[in-house]
Amino acid sequence: MSRFLHVIAVEDAVATATRIAPAPVPEKMPAGSATGRVLAEDTPTDMDIPGFDRSVVDGYALLSGDTTSSSDANPVLLQCTGRVVMGSPDPRLVVMQGTCVYIPTGGVLPAGADAVVMVEHTEETADTVLVKRPVSYGENVLLHDDDFRKGEIVLAAGRKLTPQDMGVLAAVGCTEVTVAKKPVVAIISTGNELVPATARPGPGQVRDANASMLAAYLAEYGCETRLYGIVRDEREAFETVTGRAVRECDVVLISGGSSKDDRDMTAGVIAGRGEVLVHGIAIAPGKPTIIGRIEGKPVIGLPGHPAAALVVLIAVVSPLLDRMLGLKKPVLRVTGAVLGESIPSQKGREEYARVRIDNGVATPLFGKSGLLNTLVKSDGLVRIPSGCEGLEKGTFVEVILW
Amino acid sequence: MSRFLHVIAVEDAVATATRIAPAPVPEKMPAGSATGRVLAEDTPTDMDIPGFDRSVVDGYALLSGDTTSSSDANPVLLQCTGRVVMGSPDPRLVVMQGTCVYIPTGGVLPAGADAVVMVEHTEETADTVLVKRPVSYGENVLLHDDDFRKGEIVLAAGRKLTPQDMGVLAAVGCTEVTVAKKPVVAIISTGNELVPATARPGPGQVRDANASMLAAYLAEYGCETRLYGIVRDEREAFETVTGRAVRECDVVLISGGSSKDDRDMTAGVIAGRGEVLVHGIAIAPGKPTIIGRIEGKPVIGLPGHPAAALVVLIAVVSPLLDRMLGLKKPVLRVTGAVLGESIPSQKGREEYARVRIDNGVATPLFGKSGLLNTLVKSDGLVRIPSGCEGLEKGTFVEVILW
Repeated sequence: MSRFLHVIAVEDAVATATRIAPAPVPEKMPAGSATGRVLAEDTPTDMDIPGFDRSVVDGYALLSGDTTSSSDANPVLLQCTGRVVMGSPDPRLVVMQGTCVYIPTGGVLPAGADAVVMVEHTEETADTVLVKRPVSYGENVLLHDDDFRKGEIVLAAGRKLTPQDMGVLAAVGCTEVTVAKKPVVAIISTGNELVPATARPGPGQVRDANASMLAAYLAEYGCETRLYGIVRDEREAFETVTGRAVRECDVVLISGGSSKDDRDMTAGVIAGRGEVLVHGIAIAPGKPTIIGRIEGKPVIGLPGHPAAALVVLIAVVSPLLDRMLGLKKPVLRVTGAVLGESIPSQKGREEYARVRIDNGVATPLFGKSGLLNTLVKSDGLVRIPSGCEGLEKGTFVEVILW
Repeated sequence: MSRFLHVIAVEDAVATATRIAPAPVPEKMPAGSATGRVLAEDTPTDMDIPGFDRSVVDGYALLSGDTTSSSDANPVLLQCTGRVVMGSPDPRLVVMQGTCVYIPTGGVLPAGADAVVMVEHTEETADTVLVKRPVSYGENVLLHDDDFRKGEIVLAAGRKLTPQDMGVLAAVGCTEVTVAKKPVVAIISTGNELVPATARPGPGQVRDANASMLAAYLAEYGCETRLYGIVRDEREAFETVTGRAVRECDVVLISGGSSKDDRDMTAGVIAGRGEVLVHGIAIAPGKPTIIGRIEGKPVIGLPGHPAAALVVLIAVVSPLLDRMLGLKKPVLRVTGAVLGESIPSQKGREEYARVRIDNGVATPLFGKSGLLNTLVKSDGLVRIPSGCEGLEKGTFVEVILW
């Protein structure tokens, strides 16, 4: 193994990561529990939605032409010939010149009517209605195909399903959807200094924080995660666990092992059973990242510092997962803020600074990438491009929210 | 029932909703599956984290004073007296003037040493090391309590747990957390025009989209939801279902029934078994909202139009849920954008316009609030305050992301 890493640009690392991403695997599931999943097929509607012309207010269905001259001072008098009943329209209800029909919100517009006047602008007495305002053609009416037209794609493949999409699926009667299977991601922890969260660390030991953090992030991202525990720096044991993870999962993440020995072992095992494609990325924090492939499956060696692992997960691994999910439109999770302090940066590498946001001001939290507390105190990351020597205080920046 | 609503300001509706919110109920759960839950107790650490002085790089532990004059041209020669082994520190390893010890990232700083030089700035030959740069006191060292100090609150009550918080909980050995119990929210659909998503609508009927949308939104928000199906406009049946929902859940949402008759029935049933506190909010869309209370539990009548229901959920119901969850810091889900078109607004009511965001430009999607397609095509909402007559094209606005 070389003593120094051969770093490549972030965009090249992302290109490599997405190139080796397995294709999305479609699976069917009940629509009702599909929020957050990525659609694998276009969803059309087999009927017009709402399917009939309906009123969007409580009022009177009428002919708009009858109301042209109506006003508070000179209301128009119409004969009320009936009432629309919700959900069971009466085909005999017809509106003609000089007549109107009471209609509740959502009711079917009766034949003949071309508009609805809101009840607030009328006065009803016995079977007549005084209309005090002119209404225009089509006013307060939702046409039968205003929402979706028969055959139209209501939700396109590659979309991450939102709560309102659940409403649309219900509206078009879609009770089963085809989505991308959740990528199954293995997390292997390495490092002789690590003990599980349940143990009390002895001298020189620390609890494994990264595995829990990575698993939670990936689960929120839409993956199924499998923890393979902590593997000591013994090549044979490590090879066995890696082999098992490659067989059982779609992607393998090898967490920390931030020391050179650990990295070398990780790279050695990947090289022995497959190929190392990237060893070192021009990113800070996160330089000692490995991207490889075993039996066609991506195997990523993440840096050991928690902030570095999270930055690499966001900047490099998530584009790979997006590809596996078939996600077309990235989910908006950024906000704008004004930098409260300047952030110096080293040219030639992409830097990610942790920032806290208060009232639109982003304050950088400087601190070693080995710290967890800056991750907890910050709201997100500001990216400083590779060609940039830093960002001045007062700059308007985009913050990638945690 | 009055013919007109008595609308109150949004802030007053929110004040009422939060005032009647039940207090958070704490429950214990395994830390590993608590992402997204709201902490009900401060979480302290019972030890310093990381617990010992450790190196943050691969390099040589040394006395910084030894390197004061070192440079590429005039490197300092140190005797390398040993190697730190990860996870099992050797107490006999001591660094003295003129000596150094190899240390991997994360290794325990040996006694005597006060800094670490990166391996990249050295040259090792047999048992001597050439140091080519001066290092300052404490350089590349993380102190034993740099991350968290024993007794310090690492995560405060009222915080919604993030993936990085999972890392912190693991680091401090916290395997069980006390969180707020998920509010159990009932959803009752009303409206004679509604049929379930599984049915083919007959004349004048539409499928119930809102219940699915509301349930998905609430589940993402951290609630447990229970669907009570569609209740026809028959007061007795409606009273029975409402009574059951009040007994079984913490909050009851009554969805749609956008017509005046439905609203009156909802208000009537709430008034009959409890009290109606709000009937009409100066919000658009969303005016015909009811806030009431039965047996100490909030009962909310949501408007029937999907966009209106979602706006009221975000603007009025979510503060109530935040209170029940004990959430102290609201989760940042906003982004900034420049308005691509002017949005007219009516003074005296708070308006929420659906907007789509492309490259930092927010384009309003005008359309009746009965439409689902504008919900799907939009990325979020722009709030236009009550005292405002509209927002000009080019204004910088905050978008509440879906």
